Amino acid sequence: MSNKSIQYVNENSERHEQELIEILKVPSVSSDPERKADLLVMAEQLKEEMIKIGLENTQIIPTAGHPSVYAEWLGAPGKPTLLIYGHYDVQPVDPVDLWDSPPFEPVIKNGKIFARGSADDKGQIFIHLKAIEAVLAAEKELPVNVKLIFEGEEEVGSEHLTDLIKEHAELLSCDYVIISDTPMFREGFPGITYGLRGLTYLQVDIRGTDTDLHSGTFGGLVKNPIHALVDILAKMKDEDGKILIPGFYDDVLPISENEHDKLSKLPFDPKAFADGIGAPTLYGEAGFDHLERLWARPTFDVNGIWGGFQGEGAKTVIPAEAHAKVSMRLVANQDPDDIAEKFTAYAQSLAPDTVDIKVRNMHGGFGYLTDLENPGLLAGVRALEKAFGKEVDFIREGGSIPIVKVFADILKAPVLLMGYGLPDQNAHAPNENFSLYNFHKGIESIVYFLDEMGQL
Amino acid sequence: MSNKSIQYVNENSERHEQELIEILKVPSVSSDPERKADLLVMAEQLKEEMIKIGLENTQIIPTAGHPSVYAEWLGAPGKPTLLIYGHYDVQPVDPVDLWDSPPFEPVIKNGKIFARGSADDKGQIFIHLKAIEAVLAAEKELPVNVKLIFEGEEEVGSEHLTDLIKEHAELLSCDYVIISDTPMFREGFPGITYGLRGLTYLQVDIRGTDTDLHSGTFGGLVKNPIHALVDILAKMKDEDGKILIPGFYDDVLPISENEHDKLSKLPFDPKAFADGIGAPTLYGEAGFDHLERLWARPTFDVNGIWGGFQGEGAKTVIPAEAHAKVSMRLVANQDPDDIAEKFTAYAQSLAPDTVDIKVRNMHGGFGYLTDLENPGLLAGVRALEKAFGKEVDFIREGGSIPIVKVFADILKAPVLLMGYGLPDQNAHAPNENFSLYNFHKGIESIVYFLDEMGQL
Repeated sequence: MSNKSIQYVNENSERHEQELIEILKVPSVSSDPERKADLLVMAEQLKEEMIKIGLENTQIIPTAGHPSVYAEWLGAPGKPTLLIYGHYDVQPVDPVDLWDSPPFEPVIKNGKIFARGSADDKGQIFIHLKAIEAVLAAEKELPVNVKLIFEGEEEVGSEHLTDLIKEHAELLSCDYVIISDTPMFREGFPGITYGLRGLTYLQVDIRGTDTDLHSGTFGGLVKNPIHALVDILAKMKDEDGKILIPGFYDDVLPISENEHDKLSKLPFDPKAFADGIGAPTLYGEAGFDHLERLWARPTFDVNGIWGGFQGEGAKTVIPAEAHAKVSMRLVANQDPDDIAEKFTAYAQSLAPDTVDIKVRNMHGGFGYLTDLENPGLLAGVRALEKAFGKEVDFIREGGSIPIVKVFADILKAPVLLMGYGLPDQNAHAPNENFSLYNFHKGIESIVYFLDEMGQL
Repeated sequence: MSNKSIQYVNENSERHEQELIEILKVPSVSSDPERKADLLVMAEQLKEEMIKIGLENTQIIPTAGHPSVYAEWLGAPGKPTLLIYGHYDVQPVDPVDLWDSPPFEPVIKNGKIFARGSADDKGQIFIHLKAIEAVLAAEKELPVNVKLIFEGEEEVGSEHLTDLIKEHAELLSCDYVIISDTPMFREGFPGITYGLRGLTYLQVDIRGTDTDLHSGTFGGLVKNPIHALVDILAKMKDEDGKILIPGFYDDVLPISENEHDKLSKLPFDPKAFADGIGAPTLYGEAGFDHLERLWARPTFDVNGIWGGFQGEGAKTVIPAEAHAKVSMRLVANQDPDDIAEKFTAYAQSLAPDTVDIKVRNMHGGFGYLTDLENPGLLAGVRALEKAFGKEVDFIREGGSIPIVKVFADILKAPVLLMGYGLPDQNAHAPNENFSLYNFHKGIESIVYFLDEMGQL
């Protein structure tokens, strides 16, 4: 079956590029209230595209914010149902002066298409549309059932998506969720992202006295709240980089031998990485490789600290208060609220009775991990390797995509992250770009993927 | 001899108050460029007063800023020479709304005179002028030689005083320097301040990377500079409040048994003190009493700290830099530059090689200690006890008056701090006030003091 579809993909590649250029011209910046109409134009255009390629039950689902676009093809009873999620909204374009070409006038240069939204995420959702188009055109049917949901608020926090998924849980019910919104690890090599970190973010407020005090007139008699704060923060990690919050690692899934082997195959040059960010040298938790530290291990960071005098010169003050923002990147199966409670209890136990301490849980989200033996994931691996002719990189992401866990929990389906961006795609920066090689190979890989999934 | 002088003091007390009211009307705010002429008026008025009471060689000594006023009486060959220092400039009056009466329209209420400069320091320099007036009027001569120097820049850092003392070292040469610019420890009890703390003030700058980083994309691989900073700062003190900088205590003079006995006689209510500043409870170095911690022991304080995100909400950033202002209050015989070097070496030794550290020595000053057996100090004690009819409180000050050590070093003379202010005098705040009881008893005490010094 795939041969005819692949032939179709190759024969239509030029038109596919032209169509991609057209959707990249729409300035669907979700954070800009003046672009509201452009978001609707984009949603309508995608709906038309869905109808054109043969999808059914197409609809624009309104939300309190920008709408989502839905379509389906359910003509393969007994076969798995895939829910393909993506987003049609884009990041703002500032600073626009730093763009080499206007962000909404797509330009092809050195095998890449430059435009806001090219990689994040219009180019990637278009891969799915063009793959489905190819199979339906070549074979008149799909080997699996598919549902597509493209939202318009991803770049502003997917504010209404959780409610939408809950309200339309039956419409969206599926066996797998497929998301193409991540980068590959390196150019030329397909990648599957099988893990994301979660997050717990808190603020610590320490109060020593009612007002700032003169450090001469009071120094020696009162606890300096900055001292109390630094004492607490210094006790959060030991010299090996282990986090000392009691029970912090209780739910952390260990790194399996299989995973360790896969991660250690990926090239990583610590010297080049350090030079790239201007760090004297890298730092991390003892006993783990670099990529394990970045992807598969939880972290503790102080994101901000402040108290007392910050101006030029010298002011001899004992401040009344000191504050810190702290956060922890979590890995499966850590629960962000459980971790927030453990941090709070530990911080409070460390605070001396000479100060008052308050800890506020600001927000959090679960991490996510796809089983490396998951049949859908293995089907994706086979499809990617067939299309790209290279072994798949098994990658995780250090950051968080909270909506992944929401999909998985509400729809009770595993999520597969098959991303086609490149590491230097400038997703949220000027000169965002998307590799046309990846675009075309991506379409091929989804054709193979639908085929592989149909055989499960 | 003193009896006739004391009689003169008592008979002229009402006039002395009226004269004090007159000099308190001059708004000699040294920090306000628009008050420059008022500073000159004040200096001229003091010079006239000095001439009137019988002092000689009166002169206004210009500086690059506000001038100083000088006068002398050197008719007691073979007797000690006292240099009496004070200042005629005053603090700004803001917030002026919080004053119960206009700051330069002196009002007498409940035995206190309310006006800017009443305690700090016009009322106190007037004590010396009126005591000298009394003795010269009653006895036609003084039992000692006196020199008076009143500066006009104390409230703006005595910027030109060190140069003035150096340039006029011969004119100002003396056996003792007397300064009346400190408060007593408690109402009704005379006090002698025999010690001041010094200061070393530094800034610590830690750099981790060239720019702020996303805590998800980089967390686990780079050293957070805030972590490095809090680790360093947390290692500056142990749990007992001991400062851990190697060699920090090398030059600290121990507290003698005599001093310990004297300090422990002073009433100090830790609960009331803590309540007064809104502290949950007090804190200090183990093994020392409260007033020893405040006056006779060095401290380490973080005066300010900053780095990363300080706004509302959450930003998941690993900051590029973290900073702290730190200072140490020093006691005799600690050298501020030596301490700055020791801090710097220790901080650098604690900094991991994953970050860059810079330490800048911002400024510093020596502490000061008058020997409790110094004959001049003992003469002061006898004089104060005779005038007030109460035992003298031996007090130190937690803060610094850098000029004290300058006088002592350049003129090679001990400094005696005989202060007549009260703890609640609001010296740099609205409703500054000065006790008229202390004013009159102060004049008496200086009459006795001149007599006592003449007998040394």
